[in-house]
Amino acid sequence: MELTHIDKNNQVKMVDVSNKNETLRVAKASGQIKMSQKAFDIINKNQAKKGPVLQTAIISAIMGAKKTSELIPMTHPLMLSSVECNIIKLNTLPGFCLEVTVKLSGKTGVEMEALTGVSIGLLTIYDMIKAVDKSMVISDIKLLSKSGGKSGNYNAM
Amino acid sequence: MELTHIDKNNQVKMVDVSNKNETLRVAKASGQIKMSQKAFDIINKNQAKKGPVLQTAIISAIMGAKKTSELIPMTHPLMLSSVECNIIKLNTLPGFCLEVTVKLSGKTGVEMEALTGVSIGLLTIYDMIKAVDKSMVISDIKLLSKSGGKSGNYNAM
Amino acid sequence: MELTHIDKNNQVKMVDVSNKNETLRVAKASGQIKMSQKAFDIINKNQAKKGPVLQTAIISAIMGAKKTSELIPMTHPLMLSSVECNIIKLNTLPGFCLEVTVKLSGKTGVEMEALTGVSIGLLTIYDMIKAVDKSMVISDIKLLSKSGGKSGNYNAM
Amino acid sequence: MELTHIDKNNQVKMVDVSNKNETLRVAKASGQIKMSQKAFDIINKNQAKKGPVLQTAIISAIMGAKKTSELIPMTHPLMLSSVECNIIKLNTLPGFCLEVTVKLSGKTGVEMEALTGVSIGLLTIYDMIKAVDKSMVISDIKLLSKSGGKSGNYNAM
Amino acid sequence: MELTHIDKNNQVKMVDVSNKNETLRVAKASGQIKMSQKAFDIINKNQAKKGPVLQTAIISAIMGAKKTSELIPMTHPLMLSSVECNIIKLNTLPGFCLEVTVKLSGKTGVEMEALTGVSIGLLTIYDMIKAVDKSMVISDIKLLSKSGGKSGNYNAM
Amino acid sequence: MELTHIDKNNQVKMVDVSNKNETLRVAKASGQIKMSQKAFDIINKNQAKKGPVLQTAIISAIMGAKKTSELIPMTHPLMLSSVECNIIKLNTLPGFCLEVTVKLSGKTGVEMEALTGVSIGLLTIYDMIKAVDKSMVISDIKLLSKSGGKSGNYNAM
Repeated sequence: MELTHIDKNNQVKMVDVSNKNETLRVAKASGQIKMSQKAFDIINKNQAKKGPVLQTAIISAIMGAKKTSELIPMTHPLMLSSVECNIIKLNTLPGFCLEVTVKLSGKTGVEMEALTGVSIGLLTIYDMIKAVDKSMVISDIKLLSKSGGKSGNYNAM
Repeated sequence: MELTHIDKNNQVKMVDVSNKNETLRVAKASGQIKMSQKAFDIINKNQAKKGPVLQTAIISAIMGAKKTSELIPMTHPLMLSSVECNIIKLNTLPGFCLEVTVKLSGKTGVEMEALTGVSIGLLTIYDMIKAVDKSMVISDIKLLSKSGGKSGNYNAM
Repeated sequence: MELTHIDKNNQVKMVDVSNKNETLRVAKASGQIKMSQKAFDIINKNQAKKGPVLQTAIISAIMGAKKTSELIPMTHPLMLSSVECNIIKLNTLPGFCLEVTVKLSGKTGVEMEALTGVSIGLLTIYDMIKAVDKSMVISDIKLLSKSGGKSGNYNAM
Repeated sequence: MELTHIDKNNQVKMVDVSNKNETLRVAKASGQIKMSQKAFDIINKNQAKKGPVLQTAIISAIMGAKKTSELIPMTHPLMLSSVECNIIKLNTLPGFCLEVTVKLSGKTGVEMEALTGVSIGLLTIYDMIKAVDKSMVISDIKLLSKSGGKSGNYNAM
Repeated sequence: MELTHIDKNNQVKMVDVSNKNETLRVAKASGQIKMSQKAFDIINKNQAKKGPVLQTAIISAIMGAKKTSELIPMTHPLMLSSVECNIIKLNTLPGFCLEVTVKLSGKTGVEMEALTGVSIGLLTIYDMIKAVDKSMVISDIKLLSKSGGKSGNYNAM
Repeated sequence: MELTHIDKNNQVKMVDVSNKNETLRVAKASGQIKMSQKAFDIINKNQAKKGPVLQTAIISAIMGAKKTSELIPMTHPLMLSSVECNIIKLNTLPGFCLEVTVKLSGKTGVEMEALTGVSIGLLTIYDMIKAVDKSMVISDIKLLSKSGGKSGNYNAM
């Protein structure tokens, strides 16, 4: 059956991972937010003055990754062992790319945690600058890579 | 000052809305998830059999909208008075578009609640079908319209 | 349409209450837990010594009522203005009845908050004494009365 | 001392499980909701049209099981490895029975998680159909079986 | 009765505020953390390089204030309309003072929200620097002032 | 680098503990609340009548310790295996000292969980008695001892 979260009665379930091995799982995801030149300049000027816009986004991404099992209904609660973020300035978009890398020594992958962290972090950037630009667009949220577990490694092309 | 969430010491704050009027606020946001033809076909076949993939996404979008003030650091806790979702099948993408409309009688807008609902709902679709396709991409998360409040109406072009 | 939480596409929604009036809403619910005589005696003996079994249940009922909008997917977040509990010893069951009364000045009823408080409180009694008796049964969780709002008053027979 | 959650000062505590072995723990619980024939018919007719009433209940049961350690004060946070639900139509009640099975590879049992899942799922059915029938009664919430751990297996008669 | 959270059966309750007026409530609280000169210097040097130690503390204080009703059992859920923080460097302690000011247009005061924000913010500073100094002490958490509501204004001497 | 939560770009991160060993970790923290003689007498008189003031504080401390990873941004989610509290009456302060001891078999220490439990428990005492005395002060929140893990044992002088 290809829909792993669906049981034989066509109802949702949390997949049984009790017989899986504990291995090191790593997942890395990214996404970007496109904004007006004015909004982009304000954030960058703010950062030049120890500005908290991007730092708030990073903190929310880490806290959001920890909240994944409360947000995505069929995910397992997991004891994440590491969450790291990286924000890349995209001058020509203009906007920012947010990368989130999550690690776990556990029985299931952390793709959803990395993707959720990216989404929450980008939404926070939107929130912090929306008084200037309401037309920002969040895009390209995707899994960059994963390793560990039975399904093996994955790398986005 | 253009960064409304930043105070005079360049520190973040939750904007003071205590003197704002309570009016009806409505915000509508949308986003989409692009997937392989195989993943798209499985979801649609599942839906034809009363399948819960998209219904789980809608429920998570509504619950996610309610959790916005826990996720986006500077947002106000709000007593949302309505959350409605709409999923549109995009045969040529292929994939799905999720629209979320949020209402509030209150002192501040609900853009972030609509955008958060969209993000969580799309992440849930990703989670439900990721065993089939890990290369799905979530894109075009944006505000479609808002009304109510001092800053007036907004409609995306 | 009789299923108020279902929209025209047969998808769930959070009912729109933005045009409802703010009135005083009160809901009272109750439920009971039946246990062995031994478990019943231990709790009562503990209470006689300032024991915290029933007090922990009451605290969890109040905190559980506050968490209703996170637990029951289509409920509205609400600013509860009062939660009160009452535990009645049922010597012949034997066991305990828990009553929870919730008040709100708001736009929608608080039946689910009262029922959720009852459920969480009774589960907490189960947890506190389950080392002695695993065969306890929680029953008769029901709405006793509600007042306020357009649908008027309700009293269980 | 029979009240395992009470310390020598008659205060509550979270039981120390740090020296327990990690074993596979399984718990299965169930409960039922009795309703009017009219409410029962509406749900069944809705299900016949891919209706989300029971699916929303199942999703809330799974998410509720995950929230147990936030709801029941003395329970341990646990990394549940599986949650599965089953809804049985009870034509003569009339109403529905909800069964929830929870698994964990860990140091303590998951009875409370199964019981909490059942309670939240049944409350959700109540919420979804309460506009039609406010006199529904939730009953017979009980542990059906548990296995794993030092206290051994348990099966309800 | 002087213990407002205790009912006539000597059980806890959430105080009934349904008949109170909605007025503007403001509460300001503060507290401090004392640390070694080395820890103090590292934080200040970090801040000089746009460091996130104190900014993380402020964000956690704001988010913590929003979580008060989940943490302090008898508090009411409230729609805070403003949370602002101020960190004062105390060179001679050495350490930092954190002030949190909370506003609400509502039926009950926000003292607990201000005090909770202060506590969480100071704990976050401890967490960020504890690899350097485990002997830090958090002290002097107190209400500085409150206004609004029937009990009138309060100012700490 | 001494700020373990800061990465090479001077951004916050959740420290990577995936290569650490699982060992038994224990942390004990304490703090105190100073109050007026009148407030102190009311609590003690209440306790003499099976009063729930201090029991509510203990329950909130245990639940608060479980919520640490949601409150302190860079902390890891952890499956606490034990939380125990002790309240000491301080007649000459007058006031109360709260001690919280947390255990974990895991990859990182539980200092923050013990400190958070202490803070939430003391705030709850404040909340329960604030109608009598608003000038109470919470102080001396500190780590008493920790054991387990690479950094070895710590004992406050």
